[in-house]
Amino acid sequence: MNTFGHIFRLTTFGESHGPAIGGVIDGCPAGLRLDFAAIKRSVALRSPQTTAGSTKRCETDNIEFLSGIYEGVTLGTPIAFIIRNKDVRSEDYADLEHIYRPGHADYTYDMRYGIRDHRGGGRASARTTVAQVVAGAIAEQWLAKQGVSFSVYVDQIGPILIPDQTDGNDVNKSPLRCPDKFTEALWLDLLEQVREEGDSIGGAVRCEIKGVPAGVGEPIFNKVQAALASAMLSIPAAKGFEYGLGMSAAAAQGTESNDEMLLKKGKVKFNTNRAGGLLGGITTGEPIYFRVAFKPVSSISQPQRTVTDSGQAVAVQISGRHDVCVAPRAVAVVRAMAAITIIDQILSK
Amino acid sequence: MNTFGHIFRLTTFGESHGPAIGGVIDGCPAGLRLDFAAIKRSVALRSPQTTAGSTKRCETDNIEFLSGIYEGVTLGTPIAFIIRNKDVRSEDYADLEHIYRPGHADYTYDMRYGIRDHRGGGRASARTTVAQVVAGAIAEQWLAKQGVSFSVYVDQIGPILIPDQTDGNDVNKSPLRCPDKFTEALWLDLLEQVREEGDSIGGAVRCEIKGVPAGVGEPIFNKVQAALASAMLSIPAAKGFEYGLGMSAAAAQGTESNDEMLLKKGKVKFNTNRAGGLLGGITTGEPIYFRVAFKPVSSISQPQRTVTDSGQAVAVQISGRHDVCVAPRAVAVVRAMAAITIIDQILSK
Amino acid sequence: MNTFGHIFRLTTFGESHGPAIGGVIDGCPAGLRLDFAAIKRSVALRSPQTTAGSTKRCETDNIEFLSGIYEGVTLGTPIAFIIRNKDVRSEDYADLEHIYRPGHADYTYDMRYGIRDHRGGGRASARTTVAQVVAGAIAEQWLAKQGVSFSVYVDQIGPILIPDQTDGNDVNKSPLRCPDKFTEALWLDLLEQVREEGDSIGGAVRCEIKGVPAGVGEPIFNKVQAALASAMLSIPAAKGFEYGLGMSAAAAQGTESNDEMLLKKGKVKFNTNRAGGLLGGITTGEPIYFRVAFKPVSSISQPQRTVTDSGQAVAVQISGRHDVCVAPRAVAVVRAMAAITIIDQILSK
Amino acid sequence: MNTFGHIFRLTTFGESHGPAIGGVIDGCPAGLRLDFAAIKRSVALRSPQTTAGSTKRCETDNIEFLSGIYEGVTLGTPIAFIIRNKDVRSEDYADLEHIYRPGHADYTYDMRYGIRDHRGGGRASARTTVAQVVAGAIAEQWLAKQGVSFSVYVDQIGPILIPDQTDGNDVNKSPLRCPDKFTEALWLDLLEQVREEGDSIGGAVRCEIKGVPAGVGEPIFNKVQAALASAMLSIPAAKGFEYGLGMSAAAAQGTESNDEMLLKKGKVKFNTNRAGGLLGGITTGEPIYFRVAFKPVSSISQPQRTVTDSGQAVAVQISGRHDVCVAPRAVAVVRAMAAITIIDQILSK
Repeated sequence: MNTFGHIFRLTTFGESHGPAIGGVIDGCPAGLRLDFAAIKRSVALRSPQTTAGSTKRCETDNIEFLSGIYEGVTLGTPIAFIIRNKDVRSEDYADLEHIYRPGHADYTYDMRYGIRDHRGGGRASARTTVAQVVAGAIAEQWLAKQGVSFSVYVDQIGPILIPDQTDGNDVNKSPLRCPDKFTEALWLDLLEQVREEGDSIGGAVRCEIKGVPAGVGEPIFNKVQAALASAMLSIPAAKGFEYGLGMSAAAAQGTESNDEMLLKKGKVKFNTNRAGGLLGGITTGEPIYFRVAFKPVSSISQPQRTVTDSGQAVAVQISGRHDVCVAPRAVAVVRAMAAITIIDQILSK
Repeated sequence: MNTFGHIFRLTTFGESHGPAIGGVIDGCPAGLRLDFAAIKRSVALRSPQTTAGSTKRCETDNIEFLSGIYEGVTLGTPIAFIIRNKDVRSEDYADLEHIYRPGHADYTYDMRYGIRDHRGGGRASARTTVAQVVAGAIAEQWLAKQGVSFSVYVDQIGPILIPDQTDGNDVNKSPLRCPDKFTEALWLDLLEQVREEGDSIGGAVRCEIKGVPAGVGEPIFNKVQAALASAMLSIPAAKGFEYGLGMSAAAAQGTESNDEMLLKKGKVKFNTNRAGGLLGGITTGEPIYFRVAFKPVSSISQPQRTVTDSGQAVAVQISGRHDVCVAPRAVAVVRAMAAITIIDQILSK
Repeated sequence: MNTFGHIFRLTTFGESHGPAIGGVIDGCPAGLRLDFAAIKRSVALRSPQTTAGSTKRCETDNIEFLSGIYEGVTLGTPIAFIIRNKDVRSEDYADLEHIYRPGHADYTYDMRYGIRDHRGGGRASARTTVAQVVAGAIAEQWLAKQGVSFSVYVDQIGPILIPDQTDGNDVNKSPLRCPDKFTEALWLDLLEQVREEGDSIGGAVRCEIKGVPAGVGEPIFNKVQAALASAMLSIPAAKGFEYGLGMSAAAAQGTESNDEMLLKKGKVKFNTNRAGGLLGGITTGEPIYFRVAFKPVSSISQPQRTVTDSGQAVAVQISGRHDVCVAPRAVAVVRAMAAITIIDQILSK
Repeated sequence: MNTFGHIFRLTTFGESHGPAIGGVIDGCPAGLRLDFAAIKRSVALRSPQTTAGSTKRCETDNIEFLSGIYEGVTLGTPIAFIIRNKDVRSEDYADLEHIYRPGHADYTYDMRYGIRDHRGGGRASARTTVAQVVAGAIAEQWLAKQGVSFSVYVDQIGPILIPDQTDGNDVNKSPLRCPDKFTEALWLDLLEQVREEGDSIGGAVRCEIKGVPAGVGEPIFNKVQAALASAMLSIPAAKGFEYGLGMSAAAAQGTESNDEMLLKKGKVKFNTNRAGGLLGGITTGEPIYFRVAFKPVSSISQPQRTVTDSGQAVAVQISGRHDVCVAPRAVAVVRAMAAITIIDQILSK
């Protein structure tokens, strides 16, 4: 399944080293004047050039829009876009062609399809998430007009968490998408150390969404939290999703978990927002916030035992350029999938 | 959206105190001889009679099958089933009719629909999950024939975790669905104390699925983990989902996260299973395991501030029978939603 | 697939002689006060008691609503309903248990599922369309508030067509759902003659929908006409669908097919409505009209050659009570499926 | 909705005079070696160069595949393809920019979206069906390996029908896709005459599908005939769909409509195939056959009254190059949509 959403439906396609990656958005509202420079900026934010801890593969990522737009305004018809894959040197991957890299999807794709494009991970490459980022940027432009805004940043790398949750306004200027200068310095040291060891490290991303009105969401099976969880767990390397009190809710008591409701100037207000903006799968009008944990990058230069597709035991050592921590680049993808999920929920109402 | 799944599709219906709750399963394979006693046992496992820490509402939960079965065997046509709501005394809820209970979906349903059935939480009641349990029990019977088995238990209540993960074989005999006698005693004490305080407490459920062959799953947007996350976050009170290393993956290094692959008797084997049985959204053939965190029960007998639907500030104190911890009853629902997710993924292949 | 629609989604279930037939409507707008007597009248209109040319199986068809309604008003949650199958005497069907009746789906269900409920046609029985009629009656009540109205009648039985298309206001009083007294008399004679021959006969139903505003519809793949065609061809015995000029459009010229547009009191008006109210899959604001052709009833009392499920050649003669012409009863189903299609298209906008 | 199908899902995009048109196929089986020359031939068959009665717009239609294929073999991942729009001279359409052309979707798109790309009909242009043809050609290659074959031809233009239904093997060499030399001559005369009058004319296409095994199809709502009807009515200018006895079933008697079943060499055979290969929505194993009627081309050079988008009454005369009859080009689209429908039904089983 390469389609996400019910009303605002994104279908993506593309392999890491095929001719192009891209997507089709069906159900984008008509009449939206697009800010193409903003879309380009969003895409740049997941590129290795703007983040630390990343590979240095040169991704210029020129987005070409093919349909659904007339004189810069959405038509309500499908918006198709492609990004050509440059820097495609298949021979770079020849030595890994038959090897199942540990932590990667090489083996499982072979089990699923009986065939795979081994170059750069093929369809399983995180590179393919650029399509989500393009669609998310468009969703975000529509949402901004409804007063919905996003704050997304890295809040943990390895064992080091940021001291306080914050608004993350300037986070895109930080190469680690870190809202705290002091923590960022610690993380840079940590990443350097991990890289020297030929290892990699995990991280977590926090997202907060403000301005979604109360009463948005599908109860039972497409609850906002279920749609968000599905969106986040679709991101490569994501291992967990939690919202509101999250996993620590298991240790909490009801008096620490419920939010009292008050009247402020005649309007219903929640005294706290431990619920993370959602009750029964529907928005309360308070900010929605959640965290996503990402595993360490699977490509490491330490030797690992594995097997080939013809059943030989080998050792593999993935040298050269590769990310050390995926979290900084994942910020753009978390933000995009959050925007896609929320626009779909709002339009579904 | 009250439908879950793509091939094995469950549609549920019903309010807590309406005439009945139930579901329709479309896409169940034909020719499956059903074990109705086993379905009944599954349903009993989420009832308060068999669990500690629960309300004592008498739910006899007689399941009536209406279609899709002929002489005990599935026809491949939709299987509809209903459970009549007995013990329905609407007047019990009259005093809460206009009050937005903290932690409940009363307010958000009103914002979403402009109308709600206030009795017992209406559609938002956890009682409605009995439909999932029935469908899950049917899914599990089909899966058992494919060699797929489930182990599900409570592994945390409040701050107390079980010492080791285990297989949970006998857990259904434990009123707290706890696989460890010693921990269970601690939990019973804790629950007693919380109940005396008029408070409630959270918990977590662990699920392990064995026997799913390698190569099952949809990459990109309906990854097994995304489908499971969506399934689990659809359960009332669920606040987080993690699989494999889970949230702690954020603190791990690549050497601690990857699973090496070996050949054992000519077959590909993973040396460890930190991945939780999934790579790139597709099964590796190793067990799939995950955890779900549940918040404390929202109904507590301590006074809380809230508002009414006509905009009056009031204090509410929910006395009488109510759960203290949802986790023991959630075991049956987690198991059911896991089975529904896995059968759908297998049939989608 | 037992679900129809995208926003207003009807899932049906039930075999002709199982415990019950019924449906679940997900996505019905909240706040609609239901007229239950009107629903009952719609259901009665497809029963043999109110139509000529039908079997005399006694279908009391008591509808029981199980969810989604509180004090007579829709909640926005799934509306489930069931109709118990009475008059179920399985032994009546014992002699046909292993015979593939010509024109029926006995053989194809066996090929599809490897198992079937032979009694009365099981899931393939036209009886199951009562679920569509209930859902359509609810859809129609919502549509009526938007100013949408339906006119549906039989316009052909055998070779005899009604002389002019009309509005069909009083057609429900006619046992053949015929808007023309003179034609009705001819049809009654024809049916009597066919019945005496032990044969059956085909017919056609015309539907006109007024009041749908311009701009409703999904272009490309879920065009209003495509959705209507899919809805109509889902009705048992339907063999063709045509709208606007229909099949005769193949013989027309452009000057006979286009509708000129005029201004009347400053408003855009079409001078004619050969298009049938649809251009490019989207409503023009003019009435939508279409026809559906139904084959003769497959159960006839003349002897026919066929085979059994164990591969024996036999002759079958289906004696006793059965319809001679399906069209009069199909009027209620065409109307219902039209209403379900149109509400879905309007809500999808 | 720009997606068709449930398992083999085609999403199309593109406006007639935008940068490109194209599609994404999700769910194509992995391991299919594609014959690209055959795809190209299918696309050529809907181009005006190879058909009579068509515009002479030069459509070279170079197809570029962007994903889902590795070394000529399908990967099981989405297959995206685009066809650049050449010969795009927007200024050609400037005089029609604000005019609602009779018979076209100009007015309805404006009502639906409040905005449209007026150039060449934008999204509503029949040109966009080239995406269906590409996807259909791929579907057909997979189906051919299962023994499924298609015979599609024009069987009516204006009032002139071909004398007998045939197998249409060589029809692609005929510029009118006519299987009968004598009839073709009559049609060419008719088209010439209509063209001289500045008028256009309708036609019909017949499709026969052989080799689909018995037992394919979804009963109730996605019956094979319902899916085919939906597919066919999604083709621009289609006004009706009939299968088996079709609309004439309304005039038939049961003895003329049922197919007797026989045993031939121990196998079940139907003595006739009036049913059109389908009973209860499921294949019988006999050929599936159906007809689709197309209205005359809406662009005619005779003057017609209409209005502009600013509410002025005008006369419009669409001069220059345009089709006279759509049926010959529609043959390729009917074939493609039939193949897409059948592969989806087979894979859904």
